[in-house]
Amino acid sequence: MNDVTVAVLGTGGIGRRALELSTHKEWLTPVAACDRHGIAVDHEGLDVAELLAATEGNIASGDEPGDVETDGGAAVKRSGAGKGVAASTQADSTETPIDDVIEKSDTIDAVLVALPNLEHDFIPRVTDRFVDADYEGVLIDVLKRSRVIGMLDEREDRLVDSGITFVCGAGATPGFLTGAAALAAQSFVDVESVDIRWGVGLRSGYEDNRGTVREDIAHLDGYDIETAREMTDAEIEDVIDEHDGVIEFTDMEHADDVLLERAGICDADDVSVGGILDVRNDEKPTTTTVTVTGSTFDGERATNTFQLGDETSMAANVNGPAIGYLKTGVRSNRNGVYGVFGPAELLPGF
Amino acid sequence: MNDVTVAVLGTGGIGRRALELSTHKEWLTPVAACDRHGIAVDHEGLDVAELLAATEGNIASGDEPGDVETDGGAAVKRSGAGKGVAASTQADSTETPIDDVIEKSDTIDAVLVALPNLEHDFIPRVTDRFVDADYEGVLIDVLKRSRVIGMLDEREDRLVDSGITFVCGAGATPGFLTGAAALAAQSFVDVESVDIRWGVGLRSGYEDNRGTVREDIAHLDGYDIETAREMTDAEIEDVIDEHDGVIEFTDMEHADDVLLERAGICDADDVSVGGILDVRNDEKPTTTTVTVTGSTFDGERATNTFQLGDETSMAANVNGPAIGYLKTGVRSNRNGVYGVFGPAELLPGF
Repeated sequence: MNDVTVAVLGTGGIGRRALELSTHKEWLTPVAACDRHGIAVDHEGLDVAELLAATEGNIASGDEPGDVETDGGAAVKRSGAGKGVAASTQADSTETPIDDVIEKSDTIDAVLVALPNLEHDFIPRVTDRFVDADYEGVLIDVLKRSRVIGMLDEREDRLVDSGITFVCGAGATPGFLTGAAALAAQSFVDVESVDIRWGVGLRSGYEDNRGTVREDIAHLDGYDIETAREMTDAEIEDVIDEHDGVIEFTDMEHADDVLLERAGICDADDVSVGGILDVRNDEKPTTTTVTVTGSTFDGERATNTFQLGDETSMAANVNGPAIGYLKTGVRSNRNGVYGVFGPAELLPGF
Repeated sequence: MNDVTVAVLGTGGIGRRALELSTHKEWLTPVAACDRHGIAVDHEGLDVAELLAATEGNIASGDEPGDVETDGGAAVKRSGAGKGVAASTQADSTETPIDDVIEKSDTIDAVLVALPNLEHDFIPRVTDRFVDADYEGVLIDVLKRSRVIGMLDEREDRLVDSGITFVCGAGATPGFLTGAAALAAQSFVDVESVDIRWGVGLRSGYEDNRGTVREDIAHLDGYDIETAREMTDAEIEDVIDEHDGVIEFTDMEHADDVLLERAGICDADDVSVGGILDVRNDEKPTTTTVTVTGSTFDGERATNTFQLGDETSMAANVNGPAIGYLKTGVRSNRNGVYGVFGPAELLPGF
């Protein structure tokens, strides 16, 4: 499979790194990228280096409450020089970036939705627009929240009718680590617990990933997705300062739980996700580890373990798997397999 | 997918444990099992408990050179009371077990080839017989040797024409650990090395897995697959005694190498497989570990690691993944995807 074209919605930290990573993949050609204010399209393949260089100085979110883009537009980068993608010589300004991508979508095999999801129904609503346009191909996202999966499931019939293979939760967690848990579970007939614990050091990547940090803060006690969305950047900084730059998360609502349950690996309740984010160091505050404990058919209880090397960045662990799952999604789509799929359903499993 | 029927060729350690494991899987119904001398068929589902109990006392290989079954028949258990499967009340004696399975194969979704492969072309030759009979469905094996994959590839066109999805090397290694390596590689754009090191403690499982031990000995310096096949059981015991029951293997010809290369993960030369077998203890002599070292797109070098809990048996780590890959194979087959597939190709990957 050497001929996959991809559009990237959103050119924040994840979208930009996905574009960069695509240059390492001969089989993958990025043909479109957009944010709230602009769209770049080249059916022969974007000049990724130019696009990234032209937009590098931009920052991820605005300074005012409500200034984070979650509505309709495909934006992350939107302040600073050139206001995001439009700063590229390959791009045009637009008020309707997603519609513009949809208009070109008959030549696009896969659409990577690299948008922050600070309204629960945002990615489902973006999905609806592709369905309404009778898009045929792959939609893939790196969303995190468990409840969003159900919203996508409600759209299953319409996705199938349109010819869309939707791969959801295909970043690091959920995504990479969900897949690792599903694989590790193959020793067992009964999975007792899946524990996912991540470490992220985000000093140099901080500016590029403010949207992700904001999403993470929504998981803290006393915050939720609505309050996090309304916070100013200064308020976000206050939270970070209160934690001296190192924030620990427990019992996160990460969709690993429902994604493992729908793949038949274990009950959602048996999955726990937590992690430590350090925005002042690039070294990880803890080693990202997946532990799966279960019983074998011959009556033993054991724990299988998957660990990521501390040197691997969040960007590598989100985008590598996302592009791997994207490839699988395209293969499925070309085989006529449509609907909603989590990472663990794309792996062999019980 | 709740309606998969499976036939198991060979009722040695692997075949018997695959049957046992199938009773834990609601979606999977074993409808046929055979060895050299007998075949049991029940389209409503075999009584696995009866079959296993009736054949439990049998041993895995004969006492004389050449007495190991590698030719045509589907045998492992063939001496002792009732001569294997034929001891079951569900079974009939036969001189043509594989032909008998083929005759029933229009109601069989998948055939698990759980035979020792002490002639390189044995599994390819069994495959030919299913192709000749225009079998449509999944063939899955737990073979180990790299060179066999090429022999199956030579049959690719005929497999596709027949409608067969052949999943090869789907046990522990290759199989489970190949999949773990492919998954672990998702952090990297360049994989430098894959090191697979297994530990097996096989005291209580020894009698059931003499064929596997014999295959392992063929990997030792001074032995090859032909000499191992011709050895008497007493000569096998002598080798074990010389090593005080603990045999270390390095640079094994395990198909993980070619299976990872064909999935695009790394070059076959970058893969090394070794392990330690202890036939006098059930405790593993070393923890089974997969280490994948590579470089990320953002320029870091790191090592990701997958480890199996020491309490998991070889039987759990071979048969669990085999049945997981079988399920994926059936899904692919039903979607019209035919040909030869290694474990890593069934996972998301680059």
